Amino acid sequence: MVALEVIKEIAISSPSKIVMLVIDGLGGLPEPKLGKTELEIASTPHLDRLAQEGVCGLTTPVSPGITSGSGPGHLALFGYDPLKFTIGRGVLEALGVDFELKDTDIAARGNFCTVDDEGIITDRRAGRISTETCRQLSELLGLIKLENIQLFVLPVKEHRFLLVLRGNELSSEVSDTDPQRTGVAPNMAMAINPEAKYTAHLVNQFVDAAIEILTRHYPANMILLRGFSKLPHFPSMTEIFKLKPAAIVDYPMYRGLAKLIGMEVLVTGSSIKEKLATLTEHFTKYDFFYIHIKKTDSAGEDGNFKEKVRLIEEIDAFLPILINLKPDVIVVTGDHSTPAVLKGHSWHPVPILIHSQWCRSDEVKEFSERSCVLGGLGRLLAVEVMPVAMANALKLTKFGA
Amino acid sequence: MVALEVIKEIAISSPSKIVMLVIDGLGGLPEPKLGKTELEIASTPHLDRLAQEGVCGLTTPVSPGITSGSGPGHLALFGYDPLKFTIGRGVLEALGVDFELKDTDIAARGNFCTVDDEGIITDRRAGRISTETCRQLSELLGLIKLENIQLFVLPVKEHRFLLVLRGNELSSEVSDTDPQRTGVAPNMAMAINPEAKYTAHLVNQFVDAAIEILTRHYPANMILLRGFSKLPHFPSMTEIFKLKPAAIVDYPMYRGLAKLIGMEVLVTGSSIKEKLATLTEHFTKYDFFYIHIKKTDSAGEDGNFKEKVRLIEEIDAFLPILINLKPDVIVVTGDHSTPAVLKGHSWHPVPILIHSQWCRSDEVKEFSERSCVLGGLGRLLAVEVMPVAMANALKLTKFGA
Repeated sequence: MVALEVIKEIAISSPSKIVMLVIDGLGGLPEPKLGKTELEIASTPHLDRLAQEGVCGLTTPVSPGITSGSGPGHLALFGYDPLKFTIGRGVLEALGVDFELKDTDIAARGNFCTVDDEGIITDRRAGRISTETCRQLSELLGLIKLENIQLFVLPVKEHRFLLVLRGNELSSEVSDTDPQRTGVAPNMAMAINPEAKYTAHLVNQFVDAAIEILTRHYPANMILLRGFSKLPHFPSMTEIFKLKPAAIVDYPMYRGLAKLIGMEVLVTGSSIKEKLATLTEHFTKYDFFYIHIKKTDSAGEDGNFKEKVRLIEEIDAFLPILINLKPDVIVVTGDHSTPAVLKGHSWHPVPILIHSQWCRSDEVKEFSERSCVLGGLGRLLAVEVMPVAMANALKLTKFGA
Repeated sequence: MVALEVIKEIAISSPSKIVMLVIDGLGGLPEPKLGKTELEIASTPHLDRLAQEGVCGLTTPVSPGITSGSGPGHLALFGYDPLKFTIGRGVLEALGVDFELKDTDIAARGNFCTVDDEGIITDRRAGRISTETCRQLSELLGLIKLENIQLFVLPVKEHRFLLVLRGNELSSEVSDTDPQRTGVAPNMAMAINPEAKYTAHLVNQFVDAAIEILTRHYPANMILLRGFSKLPHFPSMTEIFKLKPAAIVDYPMYRGLAKLIGMEVLVTGSSIKEKLATLTEHFTKYDFFYIHIKKTDSAGEDGNFKEKVRLIEEIDAFLPILINLKPDVIVVTGDHSTPAVLKGHSWHPVPILIHSQWCRSDEVKEFSERSCVLGGLGRLLAVEVMPVAMANALKLTKFGA
């Protein structure tokens, strides 16, 4: 993998256009009775045509065997080494609820949990309280006052919430109060370095106040905090790749991620049809488009093989809209695999196709996990995809003389 | 490749079991008349079945083109980057003769050699004296007395011996006395840093005493020492992978290596039959088993193509014992290639198969060098094998959210 500094030196701006279609959780596993994966079962004439004309392969999101979260999986596809460019849990949660973090804010991921009379954690998720209960309790915690601090408590889903502290001289170098197991008491927040003492003190004050409020709200009678973090500063895609990038994405976490690396986030709907309409509308204004389809991952997470197949077929049916815009480079892949049979993200490499006039086509005739094994791209780290896409758009000059 | 620190954070303990069968020197080259490799000629119905049901590929022990020793080859397979986790030559020699090194011991690899009347080296191996001569001479050198030092001289094989110094404040930062060529005199041992002055002085005292003893033992009238080293401290497999690992291995060097990374070394025999009996006996007690078969490598080193074929067939014949235990993950590979036609280790990538319920099978129908080229694992660094095996055992949680 080549360092971003190198890419930065050889990248040039040009009128050519790249469209990267990220089908979340694209990779799958064979359904035992059918013997084929979601992508293998799905009828995908347009993806197959792109695969046949283009060059295929399999991407490894982080490293072989490693199951990637959506954050690292996407950062890698955008060219950022996910082992180097990490985002704190609190910040990710903030991106996920579309909270506009300021540079000096401290964000933490919170759990409502259950403790017994001795203060020992008996359930780290408070029996997965409803999102509505979470909303009500978050509102109560949001009323807690800390001197010189503005605080925000936002409900996420079920037992999860986001805590943001806004003020002066706050540090994210604070240890988790969440011990990540039951049978023990929550930890006190500790300063990891001396500058964080003030913040740790505020966090503990917040927890004390929360205990008083929550004592009447069993099973959600306590909170656990982890992943204290500040908004990281990543170089923008414009800085590195000399691109004018746009994101066509509806889910908050991905919108936040796209903003973090300097993409313009366009207003769009959740369906592929709406997203391709947005692409058509803005096609002349940008030279890199990231289109994100979330529902394939959700179907995989739900173990709904049929629905994932249906969604892939739906995407395929609308692809001519994208193809007819004639972008110079089309990339289709996923940020990780989410096989319906595993009901979750997995470590399996993800099919990828790159279509361009200059891609050096291979023998792959259809877009599937098994056929991509024999593709001309071979096995590619996801972080290597952007340079290959840029090269196919003739946006990278020579390295060395 | 992902850092061990990352693996450590995402690894979880679970009841699932991994068996890694390492067929030493597995990879081969075609015998010119037959046009096929050892593994391709061998009749291996059980390996072929595992390959067909599993996912195949080729591992690169260290880096393309690099011929790996057994130490680095094995460390890589256990997940330890062999370019980072290095073991000094002296320590390797100690592991090889089953010498129990203490943390403060200094070990060095020794050669009996021949010098002429001017003290110039004429043969670095003293005409490869017999192992019996080596034993007698080692015994003599073992009688040398150094103040406050306990010393051990152990015969290894032919001209090779092991020197261990035991005492206080010894340092391994001592330069080799072996210039690794003839036509020059042996070097004095030098302290690489000031703390090693005492040790370097002791080494030179030892060499002087040895010269006096060996003057009557031409051609073994001098010694050369290299690879002064202390037992390294590697994080254990339990620490990193949360495994309870057992090694079923009879050769001393591999036993020592296994101990070095915290494996329990089980008593076993040298045949595959005896090793699989040991596996069966202990199967419930551990969740990771490393089984080592040495003789395939020895046959390769001897240039005995037929014997290597026979040994592979013998392993295959006993495989049902392993398969019937139904481990969640079976890994079969080698630590490096040892083609009989090259009579030694080689740089060629090594066939690997990983068999599990979740492996995403490929089109490979038989276990061989050529068919593995088209496998779903593609080309894998050996150090990446453990994470993939762990993933297939569902022992790795997600990286990032």
